[in-house]
Amino acid sequence: MKQNIYDNPTFFEKYSSLRNSGVTYNDFVEQPAIKSLISSLKGKSVLDLGCGDGRFAKYCIDNVATNVVGVDISSKMIEQAQVENMHENIKYLCMPIEDLDLPNEKYDLIISSLAIHYIEDYPALLKKVYALLHNKGEFIFSMEHPIVTARKEMNNWVKDDDGNRLHWALDDYHEEGKREQQWYINGVIKYHRSVSTLINGLIEAGFTIEKIIEPQSIPVGIQQMPKIINEKRRPSFIVFKAKLR
Amino acid sequence: MKQNIYDNPTFFEKYSSLRNSGVTYNDFVEQPAIKSLISSLKGKSVLDLGCGDGRFAKYCIDNVATNVVGVDISSKMIEQAQVENMHENIKYLCMPIEDLDLPNEKYDLIISSLAIHYIEDYPALLKKVYALLHNKGEFIFSMEHPIVTARKEMNNWVKDDDGNRLHWALDDYHEEGKREQQWYINGVIKYHRSVSTLINGLIEAGFTIEKIIEPQSIPVGIQQMPKIINEKRRPSFIVFKAKLR
Repeated sequence: MKQNIYDNPTFFEKYSSLRNSGVTYNDFVEQPAIKSLISSLKGKSVLDLGCGDGRFAKYCIDNVATNVVGVDISSKMIEQAQVENMHENIKYLCMPIEDLDLPNEKYDLIISSLAIHYIEDYPALLKKVYALLHNKGEFIFSMEHPIVTARKEMNNWVKDDDGNRLHWALDDYHEEGKREQQWYINGVIKYHRSVSTLINGLIEAGFTIEKIIEPQSIPVGIQQMPKIINEKRRPSFIVFKAKLR
Repeated sequence: MKQNIYDNPTFFEKYSSLRNSGVTYNDFVEQPAIKSLISSLKGKSVLDLGCGDGRFAKYCIDNVATNVVGVDISSKMIEQAQVENMHENIKYLCMPIEDLDLPNEKYDLIISSLAIHYIEDYPALLKKVYALLHNKGEFIFSMEHPIVTARKEMNNWVKDDDGNRLHWALDDYHEEGKREQQWYINGVIKYHRSVSTLINGLIEAGFTIEKIIEPQSIPVGIQQMPKIINEKRRPSFIVFKAKLR
């Protein structure tokens, strides 16, 4: 069963309003890290897995990528992409990443921003990505950090009576699998995997690890969103750059 | 200033007595992981950085390595190695790993077991290891996991009033550098580095990442040392296998 929280009206509204504010962890932490790993988009064909409202697809075209295919499970997201980020060289597909079947296509760069923690079968995904990449093609993806997805009970800061963060509570690191969270709505399902599972999976699938980022905020984020300084205390995200061997 | 806690008589006595018990995290968690990463020792020349009492050097010879050089900062450790694990094809050198200077030597395999978290300058160490490896040579090393070295205040389980472990307290993840701990004696200095720093350092130094293990206990450990089950909740160690590109 593939999860489609983004088509839940309550979730969609709250998520869209957050993303459109421009004051998010995506803007200040995750997107700068992903973008820093892209050597060049010029002349590249790009596949964006979990493209959401298409803003990254548009970013690729603005940076002279040749063509972009964006895939998302959410029809609401794809509708929004087709309104806000349409371009003749962008094609949007509304389907689960897991069902993607493009037997005759190859890309120079496959990107996925904060989607892979929703995918249950990581090795199957990597096999698919591998088959869709040109020789020396790159796979760059971000996801929630295993440090933040590990604990089953609740992923959280332990605070004192005044609300000061004392430390991050970590547990259940090696119990991989489903984690149910509340994020705007109840029952958001993510899949926890250890750092070693993520890395060894890539290597076993035929990739070489090029770089890993556990991103902190860019300076403007600390001004506009003071609590983002806590990314220094425990990383929310991990970003991988891997290359076809 | 290179740290030499193993020549402190109190530390040495307690550490030796622990290691000789055969009931340790080394025996059940760390050593099985390191050994699982070694494809073969047959006909190999091996350099062991932080060789301690030489038991791993001896293990290499027992598994038909051609020759082993063991290096350790502690004269007490090297004395013990020369008594207990002497062999015509093992040479022990008493010096800090940081001062190692073997300009005309090359090895097939460089091993380091739980020593690299004592080294301040990680890139300099990697440069040295790189220069000492034959083409396609392997570097396999274990160290304390960043999850356990991160927090400055105290690395610990948070427990309830009955002593039950509630969760692991994590903090200060991105503040790399010195951590002072108590381990038999006061003032044991270790250096915390993030997972991404450890991995990117290897890649920048010219290595390819082959595999990473965040080890749990082998089954016998859980019988003989019940608390070792907690390695499932947060890993104490991380083990890397890297190859010269």
